[in-house]
Formats: sequence, C-alpha cells, structure tokens
Amino acid sequence: MRKKYNWGILAPGKIAHKFAEGLKILEKANLYSVGSRSAERAAAFAKEHGFAKHYGSYHEMVADPLLDIVYIASPHSHHMEHTLLCLGHGKNVICEKAFAMNSSEVNTMISMAEEKDLFLMEALWPPFQPSYIKALDALKRGNLGEVLYLRSHFAFKAPYDPDGRLFNPKLGGGALLDIGIYPLIDTLTFIGKPITIEAFASFAPSGVDHTVDIHLDMGKGRYASLYASLNSPGGICTELFCSNGKITLSRNRDLTQTCKIEAEESDPLVYTFKPAAMGYHLEAIEVMDCLDRQVGQSSYVSWSFSRDLIETMDAVRKRINLVYPGN
Amino acid sequence: MRKKYNWGILAPGKIAHKFAEGLKILEKANLYSVGSRSAERAAAFAKEHGFAKHYGSYHEMVADPLLDIVYIASPHSHHMEHTLLCLGHGKNVICEKAFAMNSSEVNTMISMAEEKDLFLMEALWPPFQPSYIKALDALKRGNLGEVLYLRSHFAFKAPYDPDGRLFNPKLGGGALLDIGIYPLIDTLTFIGKPITIEAFASFAPSGVDHTVDIHLDMGKGRYASLYASLNSPGGICTELFCSNGKITLSRNRDLTQTCKIEAEESDPLVYTFKPAAMGYHLEAIEVMDCLDRQVGQSSYVSWSFSRDLIETMDAVRKRINLVYPGN
Repeated sequence: MRKKYNWGILAPGKIAHKFAEGLKILEKANLYSVGSRSAERAAAFAKEHGFAKHYGSYHEMVADPLLDIVYIASPHSHHMEHTLLCLGHGKNVICEKAFAMNSSEVNTMISMAEEKDLFLMEALWPPFQPSYIKALDALKRGNLGEVLYLRSHFAFKAPYDPDGRLFNPKLGGGALLDIGIYPLIDTLTFIGKPITIEAFASFAPSGVDHTVDIHLDMGKGRYASLYASLNSPGGICTELFCSNGKITLSRNRDLTQTCKIEAEESDPLVYTFKPAAMGYHLEAIEVMDCLDRQVGQSSYVSWSFSRDLIETMDAVRKRINLVYPGN
Repeated sequence: MRKKYNWGILAPGKIAHKFAEGLKILEKANLYSVGSRSAERAAAFAKEHGFAKHYGSYHEMVADPLLDIVYIASPHSHHMEHTLLCLGHGKNVICEKAFAMNSSEVNTMISMAEEKDLFLMEALWPPFQPSYIKALDALKRGNLGEVLYLRSHFAFKAPYDPDGRLFNPKLGGGALLDIGIYPLIDTLTFIGKPITIEAFASFAPSGVDHTVDIHLDMGKGRYASLYASLNSPGGICTELFCSNGKITLSRNRDLTQTCKIEAEESDPLVYTFKPAAMGYHLEAIEVMDCLDRQVGQSSYVSWSFSRDLIETMDAVRKRINLVYPGN
C-alpha cells in the first residue's frame, strides 16, 4: 500500500475550510495538523474537521517532524514568508493563489524549493477541474480551430470593508490578485503569454483596485479581454472564440461548472459537472501524486506557469499603477 | 389622410433588398424608384420589388421631382458623394451606416442637410429594434443600477475576397466600419462617449482590418470591451454588466432578437422578438414620422449621435493606424 501523507493547514480561514473538505474524501490524506496565530482558532478548526493536532503558532506547527505537506491559506501578503518558513523546515508546500505579491517573491520561493529539493505548487483551482479539462480536450481534437479571442470575467459584489482581506492593501487586497487572476489563468492556459498589455482600473478608497479591465494582444491576430470587479454581480464565465466554433466555460451559483462546445454547423454540446468537495480535492490529489513520483513540481501548474502568471500580474499592476506597501 | 411618400433606392445591393422588404409592409411608403449605375440591375430590382421607376444613373433618379426620400445603400466610400447628390436635388436622405468614411465627411453631409432644410439620418438598425427598446426601458426603471461594463462582439466568417466590399480599402472595407460599428453604437447608446480608447487590430492582405479589438475607458469606473471580426463565427451579442444585474442582447441565426434581463436575486426574464421585415421597416417609419412632423433629424439617431459615432471610429482608426486611400 502506498504512503499516507500528513497534511497541515496554515492559517485556517474561509478557503481552508473548503480545502479541508476536499482532504476528507481522500484516502491517502491524513488530516494531521492546523496552525494559526490564534490557538483558539486552530483548536476550533481542528475539532470541526478532525485534524489530529493544532498549534497556536506557525513555527510550532512546521517544527513537527511528522508533518509532510502544508497548505498555506494566509493572505497574499504573507505567502512568501509562510512558504519559506515551511520549506525551511523541510515541508512540502501547496500555497493559495496569488502565489505571492510579485515575481521577485515567487522566484525566491521557487529557488528555495529547488535548493531544498521539496515540492512546491500554487494552489490553482481551474486547471484540475473537469470542465477545464473538457475544454482543453475539445481544443486538442482540432475541429474548433485555433483560439482567436478569449473573453473572461470574474465579478461579484463585495461589501466594502477597508480592513478586510479583499480591500486591505497591506494584505494584498484588490480585484486583480484575488479574482483577476482567474481570467489570466485562462488566458495563459488557452492561448499563452500576452505580447502587449493594456489595462484600466478604478480604485476603492483603501487604494486597491475595485475593478480591473485588461486588454491583451496575444500575437498572430489573437486578443483577450478580461474583466474583474468586486463591484458587480456579473458572475464567472470564460468564452473562447475559435476559428471554427466557440467554447463557453462557466461556474454557476449552484457550484456546477458547465462547458459548452459549439462547433460550426453542429448542435451545441453542453457538459455539466459538480465535482465532489467543490473540486479542491483535485489539487490535493495532484500534490500527493507528485510526491509519490518524487517530482518537485506539478505539470498542471508548473513553476514556469506560475512565473508567467505573476509576471503578467506585475505588468498589469504597472499599467494601472497599483503599488502595495513595501513592494 | 396623411401623405404617402415616394421612396427611392440608390444602389440596389444586398442590404437594399432587405430595406425594400421593409418598405413593402408600410402603407405610407410608395415604392417609387430605383437608381443604379447599371440600368439592368435597376430594372431587375424594380421588377423584383415592385418599384414604379428605374434609372441607369443616380443623377437621373434624383432629378425626378416626384421622389421624396432616398435610401442610400452604396459602399461607405460613396456615402458622402451620394448623400450630397440627393440633398443637392432637394431629396430627403436615409444613408446606410457607416454614415461616411470619417467625421469630416459626416460634418459636410449634416451641414448641407441643415442648409437645404432637408431630413438626413444614418440608417442604424439597432436603435429601432424592440429588444433594444426593452433594454433601455429596463435600465430606465432603475432596479438594475448603472451600467458598469459593456461587452459586445460582432463576428462572422467572411470568405476573403480582396475586391469585394468587405475587404476592398477603396470601398471602405474592413471590420470596424462594417460591423465594429455595432458594438460602438451600443456603447454610445448605453453608456456614452468614451474618454480613453485603446485598440488592437490585425489586417487582411488587402490592408483593411480583419479583426479589431477595442477597449474603452468610459469614466467613473466604467469600461467597455468590443470585438469585431470577419474571421470567426462568434455571432452577435452585447452584455451590460450593471451594479445590480445584467442585460444580454443577442441576435440569433434565425433572426430572432433576445433581451435577457437578470436583476439581482430575481429569476431571469427573457424576451424574444422577431420583427416583421427583419426590422428595417422601423427605420423607414421613423423617417416618415420625422417628415410628417417636419423635423430635419431623428431623436433616435440624431446628428450628434452620428457625429459621436464617426468621431469614435476615427479615433479607433488612428489607434490601429487604419488609413483609407484618399483620406
């Protein structure tokens, strides 16, 4: 029988609950420890989800020699610090997106993973989802032709709270890093890295981007228009206009994902998926598969993919003049 | 009983057939004359649609004192010349979009209409359509809030023909003037005139824009992303992301129009319309209503609207460096 892995959760916030639900359905995942700056929060989270241990500090958690993998769910502003802490203690890491605040931080994280010969992956949700894989498969078949135009939006109404994670510049708040990243993931996945980047943005009183509208020249007559907003109930959808058809990927309020494939002159095909545990378990499966195979990075979300992603976000930030404290 | 109006068609091409079908269902419209550079084409068109007279030259047609209104359906490159010819002979004019090649030509046309005290209107299809009026009405009611983001595309696959109207630079071909105008009409109608214009384009071998991708900053945190292409089967759709909901306007292959209204927390409402004579008769009704009321311009498509539209297209052309012979 294959090894079971001891999982730890660093910073048990909202997203960590979803991830823990994912771990629960995986035989190979042992819900091992939780670390929080608050001992009470760690204890409550461990109790709720059935983790064996809980720590009132991240340092104590990573000092535990039996811990194999840490899922980092702290705010973007602390991703590098916490990733380096875990890698420094010999722990493998899956770190929530945005991977870090900028490409310099991401490069530091990747260098340390290489140096320590440990596994490191950005916790990106889309590349593991069945709707996404269906779209990639349809494109590979070839009858849709090439993607000429990608259009993607991620928009919801977030109540303005200058201290909350979404709006606090000290925590890396704003639309781009938190949700604008999804249209960018889609662009890099389905077309590649942009050649020219234009962007407009409007800002919340706290100084972070409330809405960002990104316009990309992808070369060879291919373009992308991306929109992310904390200010409109627009939902989540990506459309790929191809030379011989169209693919529409959407995520609905009821958590189903749909992939609609419209090849020219054919009836549309609609695939609907509702993954178990919201689909977060798929990321954890990939981490454990990579550890089984003793590879340091995932081929679904490679280090070079994460580098391209953060470099594109850096370039967008430069266009809209979005500067975070200290970087 | 009110006056019947004698209609003339100048340049009986593809779009003129559709317009003639519209005239046929209007009691007040008398299908009077057809003018073409080819006497045979004029005769054939007159016979097919039941026009009383046909002329093998535009000059002969406009010299006819009984002709009241001319619908100009020649290529964009000739709109100014033909509009001035008609106005110069005392005829009222409805001229196909794009109104002319640039704002200087449009200003010349409008000045002459003012000087001669004649009616002049750009033949824009959308503003008269029931789906459009439904959307404007929904926005006026207020529960959707304001339009924060407009996204619109008009894309179809046109076989490349360097001599055809769509691709010939001498005839004002290209995606922007022919179909990119629709997303721009929607933008001006539902939000207003842009503050900042960015645009990317790729070009057909003949030199006209094959695809144009336009990105607009509308001010006050509002944006628009527009796409027009002669190279993908993407169809026709405009989405208005509002602060409290969304409106989706689409035109389907079966010629129906739909207006989908999604107010926050309500079930979506979908209105489907199939106007008589494809909806072109609505433009003709407006022309005759204006003549009845003795006004020189329509309030649906005012001269100032047409000026804003061509000025925006001039600005887009400047961004993408699209230059037509002679202007």
